[in-house]
Amino acid sequence: MTTDPTDRHYDREFVRTFFTSPTAVEDGEDSAKMLRSAAQLRGMEAPDVWVPDNEDATAPSMRDQGVENVVEVVSEHGADFPGEIHPRVVWHRDDPATRYRGLQHMLAMADPEAGAVDHLDGFVIPEVGDIDDWKKADEVLTMVETEHGLDEGSLSMSVIVESGEAELAMGDLRQEAGRPSNNLERMFLLVDGEVDYTKDMRAMTPTGELPEWPELRHNTSRGASAAGLVAVDGPFDDIRDVEGYRDRMTENRAMGMTGIWSLTPGQVVEANTAPLPPASGYWLLDDGTSETELRESDGRWVYDGDALALEQSGDGYVLRVDGREQELSGDDLREELLGRAAYVPGMDDIVDSMEEFEAAKEAGKGAIAMTRAATLEIDGLAVDLEADRMWDEATYQAAKTPIDLFQDVYEHRPDQHDALADRYGGEVVERATDLGT
Amino acid sequence: MTTDPTDRHYDREFVRTFFTSPTAVEDGEDSAKMLRSAAQLRGMEAPDVWVPDNEDATAPSMRDQGVENVVEVVSEHGADFPGEIHPRVVWHRDDPATRYRGLQHMLAMADPEAGAVDHLDGFVIPEVGDIDDWKKADEVLTMVETEHGLDEGSLSMSVIVESGEAELAMGDLRQEAGRPSNNLERMFLLVDGEVDYTKDMRAMTPTGELPEWPELRHNTSRGASAAGLVAVDGPFDDIRDVEGYRDRMTENRAMGMTGIWSLTPGQVVEANTAPLPPASGYWLLDDGTSETELRESDGRWVYDGDALALEQSGDGYVLRVDGREQELSGDDLREELLGRAAYVPGMDDIVDSMEEFEAAKEAGKGAIAMTRAATLEIDGLAVDLEADRMWDEATYQAAKTPIDLFQDVYEHRPDQHDALADRYGGEVVERATDLGT
Amino acid sequence: MTTDPTDRHYDREFVRTFFTSPTAVEDGEDSAKMLRSAAQLRGMEAPDVWVPDNEDATAPSMRDQGVENVVEVVSEHGADFPGEIHPRVVWHRDDPATRYRGLQHMLAMADPEAGAVDHLDGFVIPEVGDIDDWKKADEVLTMVETEHGLDEGSLSMSVIVESGEAELAMGDLRQEAGRPSNNLERMFLLVDGEVDYTKDMRAMTPTGELPEWPELRHNTSRGASAAGLVAVDGPFDDIRDVEGYRDRMTENRAMGMTGIWSLTPGQVVEANTAPLPPASGYWLLDDGTSETELRESDGRWVYDGDALALEQSGDGYVLRVDGREQELSGDDLREELLGRAAYVPGMDDIVDSMEEFEAAKEAGKGAIAMTRAATLEIDGLAVDLEADRMWDEATYQAAKTPIDLFQDVYEHRPDQHDALADRYGGEVVERATDLGT
Repeated sequence: MTTDPTDRHYDREFVRTFFTSPTAVEDGEDSAKMLRSAAQLRGMEAPDVWVPDNEDATAPSMRDQGVENVVEVVSEHGADFPGEIHPRVVWHRDDPATRYRGLQHMLAMADPEAGAVDHLDGFVIPEVGDIDDWKKADEVLTMVETEHGLDEGSLSMSVIVESGEAELAMGDLRQEAGRPSNNLERMFLLVDGEVDYTKDMRAMTPTGELPEWPELRHNTSRGASAAGLVAVDGPFDDIRDVEGYRDRMTENRAMGMTGIWSLTPGQVVEANTAPLPPASGYWLLDDGTSETELRESDGRWVYDGDALALEQSGDGYVLRVDGREQELSGDDLREELLGRAAYVPGMDDIVDSMEEFEAAKEAGKGAIAMTRAATLEIDGLAVDLEADRMWDEATYQAAKTPIDLFQDVYEHRPDQHDALADRYGGEVVERATDLGT
Repeated sequence: MTTDPTDRHYDREFVRTFFTSPTAVEDGEDSAKMLRSAAQLRGMEAPDVWVPDNEDATAPSMRDQGVENVVEVVSEHGADFPGEIHPRVVWHRDDPATRYRGLQHMLAMADPEAGAVDHLDGFVIPEVGDIDDWKKADEVLTMVETEHGLDEGSLSMSVIVESGEAELAMGDLRQEAGRPSNNLERMFLLVDGEVDYTKDMRAMTPTGELPEWPELRHNTSRGASAAGLVAVDGPFDDIRDVEGYRDRMTENRAMGMTGIWSLTPGQVVEANTAPLPPASGYWLLDDGTSETELRESDGRWVYDGDALALEQSGDGYVLRVDGREQELSGDDLREELLGRAAYVPGMDDIVDSMEEFEAAKEAGKGAIAMTRAATLEIDGLAVDLEADRMWDEATYQAAKTPIDLFQDVYEHRPDQHDALADRYGGEVVERATDLGT
Repeated sequence: MTTDPTDRHYDREFVRTFFTSPTAVEDGEDSAKMLRSAAQLRGMEAPDVWVPDNEDATAPSMRDQGVENVVEVVSEHGADFPGEIHPRVVWHRDDPATRYRGLQHMLAMADPEAGAVDHLDGFVIPEVGDIDDWKKADEVLTMVETEHGLDEGSLSMSVIVESGEAELAMGDLRQEAGRPSNNLERMFLLVDGEVDYTKDMRAMTPTGELPEWPELRHNTSRGASAAGLVAVDGPFDDIRDVEGYRDRMTENRAMGMTGIWSLTPGQVVEANTAPLPPASGYWLLDDGTSETELRESDGRWVYDGDALALEQSGDGYVLRVDGREQELSGDDLREELLGRAAYVPGMDDIVDSMEEFEAAKEAGKGAIAMTRAATLEIDGLAVDLEADRMWDEATYQAAKTPIDLFQDVYEHRPDQHDALADRYGGEVVERATDLGT
C-alpha cells in the first residue's frame, strides 16, 4: 500500500491478520515465487499486515537472496497490495553480528533506488530483549531513514515478543517512548512469538505442545493498550485445525488481542472474519457440558442435544441437567433457563441497539432498558424467555468495539467491501459505517 | 463518619463493601432522594465505604446539581453514617477539561462553609492513567486541602483502575508514593472497573459479557499489598444473580481482594457477610462433578447426591465416582475419601485452633498437630475420617486473616455488633475479638 | 560440594530440587541429627540444592544453636555432599533487628576458622521486600565476603518471594543487577513461598487451602528468565499426596519453573525424576473426561476406559464420546482420533528426533517432516494413526530443553549416573550427553 511517510504507522487501529510467507525457497530458479503469490492476495484472502519473512522462514544462507526478492516483489506489486507491508528482518538481543546484519538488510530494502521503499510501511524486529534493546532497533531504523532521506519515524517498528525481557519491556514502553533521544513513537504491533518464548522460558510439556501462556498474552494486550499499539498473537501451527484456530482467536479477543499470525491464506480468511460480528444473531444454551448453539426453526430456538432434558409434570416441569433433577414451576423454569441462555448479537442487532441508545441519548436519557425475547424449544416444549439489559454510556462504549473494528476495516480495506456486503447486506453495512459519526 | 483529619485514611485495613448510589435523578423535585436514602443505611445494609457517585451514575448535565446534593445530604446525615464517605468525582487521563471540572467539584464538596467536609474521608478518582496522572489527581487534592485549610494528605484518594496504564501504575506506586514532591501516601483503595477496562483493552466477547480479567485482579491485589492499600473488585451487573456474586467474591478473596463494589443494599449485605467465616463449620465432598456441601444429621455428615456411590462388597467397598468403579478396603476407602473431603471451619473452629496454637506457643512449642474427625454417611454407609494438620507460625499467621478482618469490622462498625452477635453468639464474638491481643 | 569461589553460583542452569531439612530439634542432646542425616543423602535422594533451614524450620530460641549445627555438619559432610549447599538464614523486609541477626548468622557460618565456608555455595534470604531490600541483603553478603577474605560475589544469593513487593522486584532485577554499586549478579534462585505470600496478600479460601497463584509463578519464571536465574516453586505440604505433587510439577514446568521445594527425601526423588523425559514414550487419548494413558500390548496402544466407545457399523464406525454419538467413515475416524491422541516422547524418541534434525541441518535442510505412526485399539477395533510434524530450528531448540536439563544433571551429579543408566540404558544416556556438542 502506498502511503505518505507521516501517516504510515498508526494508520490501523485494529489489525486482524499478520501474515508471514516464506521469502526464499531453498534453490531452483524462481526463489521469489511464494513472495510473488502472497503479494497478489486480495479481499478476505489478503492480510491487514503482510510480513515477507527474511528471518525464520528463510534459511540463513538464503537471506541475502531474500532481501533481493523482497525488493523485487514489493517494487513490482507493492502499489497494488491492499494491506500494509512490513518485512521481518534478522535481529537478536544477544548477538551484535545479527543486529548489524539486520541493519544491512533494512538499508537494502529501503534503498530508494531499489524502488520498494514507497510501499514499505515498516519493519518487524524479532527476538528483541529489554527496552534498551528496543532502543537499539529504533536507532537502526533511524539510521536507515536518515541514510535514505526519509523522515525520522516514518518507518514503523513492530516487535516479536519472545523472551521474558521483552515481556517486561512492554511495561516500560509507554514511559520510554516519550524520551527525546529515541523515536519509539514509531512502534506499531506487539506480536507474541510463543515457540521461542517457550524456549527462552525453558518451559516443557510432556507432549511438546506449546503452553497456553495466558499471562504473556494479557501483558501484551495491556502493553499495547497502554502505549496505543495493537496486540497480535503468534502462529497457530496446526493449520488443519480450523476449530482450534477459531477458539484461540475467541480467547484472544476476550483479552483485547484482536490480531493473530496467519501462516496460510486459509488462516488469513479465518482471521479476517473472526473478529467481525456474525451476520445474524443466535442463542446459546449452557446444557451442563458446553455452550450449545441453538437452531432456529419457525421462530423458535431449538435445543437438539441430550445433555439437558425437559418434561412436563402436572402444573410444572422436570428439568434434568448436570446429573440433577429439578421440579420447577413455569416461572422457576424461565428463571433457570434465563441463567443458562445467552444471545450472541448479529451485526444488525448491534447496529439496532446502538442507534436506539444514540437516539435516547439525544433525547436526554442516560440509560435505557433493552429487551431481548425468544422462544426456546427443548424436547418439544416451548418456553418463552425475556431478558432486560440496562444500557448506559459505558455499555454503549464497550459494545462499540466491534463497530470500531468494522469501521476501521471498512475505511482501510476497500478490497473487502464486496465480501462485507455479501456477509451483512448493503443496508446494514451502510448503517454500521454511519454509527457514531 | 466524623474523623480527625490525620486518621481518616488507612483507618480500615479491610474494606468489604464499596457502595455507589446514584446521585441525581434525571429530573423531578427531589433529585437527592436516592442519596438521602443511601445515607441512612445502617448495620449490615450499610457499606464500609459509601461512594456518592457524581461520575457515571449521574448524567453529565446534572453533575453540578449532584455536587449540591452531595453537600446537602452529607452535611445532614454524614455525622451519623456508620461507614466512610468518599464521593466519586469526574476525571479523565486524556481530558484536561474533565480534570479541571473534577477539581471544581472537589473544591465545592470540601468547602468548610458548606458543612460536608467534616464527614468526607476522601475522594474516588475514576479513569486514572499512568502514575504521572495519579500525581496530577494527588496535586488536585492537595490544592483542595490547602485552599480549605485542611492538612496535606488528610483527604484520602482512591482510584478506579480501568485502563492498561493504570494497571501498570500499580506496580510503580510503592516507589513513587515515597517521593517528597507528592502526597500519594493518601492512597486508600484500588478499585477495578471492568466495564471501562474492557473498552480500553478493546476486548470483545461474543455475547458482550465481560471477560473475567484474572490478571488484572491479581495485579490490583498485589499492588494493594505492596503499597499497603486495599483492593476492591468492580461492579457485578446482574444484581439478581446472588449465587454468581458470591462465587465472584470467593474467587476474589483467594486473590487477596477482600472488597467488592455493591450496587444495591442487597448486594451490600452479601458483600458485608461473605468474607466473614460461617457461624458453623461443615464438610465438603468432591463427588467428581463439584464440591458438594454435606448435611449434618445426628452427628454424621450425609452425602445426598448421586454422582458418587458407595456399597459394601464382602470385606470391602465398591466406590463409583468419575465414571470409574474401585474396589477398596476400609483403609483405602478412608484414604480416598480423605482426599475428596475438606472441612470449612466455622468461626468457633478458627478461634479454637488459634487459641490452642497460642497456648502451645506460650508453652514453648513451635508446631502442633490439629486433628479433625468426622463420620461421613454415603448411601447409608458410615465412614470415619480423621485428618491431621500441622500448625506452625506460618499456618497460624495465614489462618489469622479472617480474624484480622473480623476484628477490623468489630472495631470500626459498632452498628454491626448486633448482627455479629446474632450470627456467632456473644461468647465466640468476645473470644474472637480477644485473639492475639 | 567444594567449588572455586568464582564458579560457585550460576553453576547449575537447572535446579530440580530445593530441599529444606529442619536444622535443630527442639531439645535433646543431638539437635543436629536431622541435619546430619540430610547431609548424607546421595543419588536420586540427594537434592540439587540443599538448604539447612535456620529460619522457619528452627524455633526462634534455637537459632544460635542452629548456626553451630550447620557449621558442624557442613564442615564434616560438606566435601562429600553431591549437591550445592545454601543455608537459609533469618531476614525480614520490615524488621531491621531480624536483618542484623541474619548478618550475624551468615558471618558465623562463613567464618573460615569454622571450616564450613569451603562447602557453602550461597545463602537463601527469606521475606525479602522491594528491590532496595534485596540490595540490603546483597550488601550484607558483601560484608560477609569482605570480612572473611572471600571474593565479592563469590557467595550466591537466593531469595524466597513471599510478598507483593518481592513479586514486583523480580521485574526490576535485570536492570538493577547491572548497577556498579551492588553485587546482585550473585543472584541464583527465585523461590516462591506461597504460605507467607498468601498471608501477605491477605488471601482467604474457605477451607484454608492455599490458592494456586498462577500469576505469581508466571512472574517468578519470567523474572528468572529475564535475569538468567532459576525459578523454584514452594513447598507442597501434603507429603502423602504424590500424585498431587507430580501434577503441580507438570504445571510448573509448563510455566518454565523447573524446580520445586522438597520437604522429604521421598519428595526429592519425585522432584529429581519428574523433569526428566520418560524412559519409553507412550500415547495419550483424550476420552472426554481426561487424558488417559494407553497401554501397549503386542504393538498396539489399547484404551481400557469406558468414557469413549467405538463400534463398527456397516462400512463405517460409531464413536460415542462427550455424550454424543458420531457416525464416521474410516478416514473421519482417524482424523477425529488424531485430534484426541497425543504422544509423549521417551528419551530415546527425543534423541532420535534431534539426531535426525541435526543430520538434516548438516545436509543443508532447514526443515524436515517427522512422522509418528501407531495402531490404537478401542473396544477391540484397531485404528492406524499417522501424524506428521514439521521440525525447523525453532522446534529443535524448544525440544532441546529436556536435553539441556539432562546434560546439566549429568555434568553436575555424577552420583546420579547409575540411576540415569538404570532408567534409560547406557547407550541412550551416551547419545543424549553427546547431542549438540
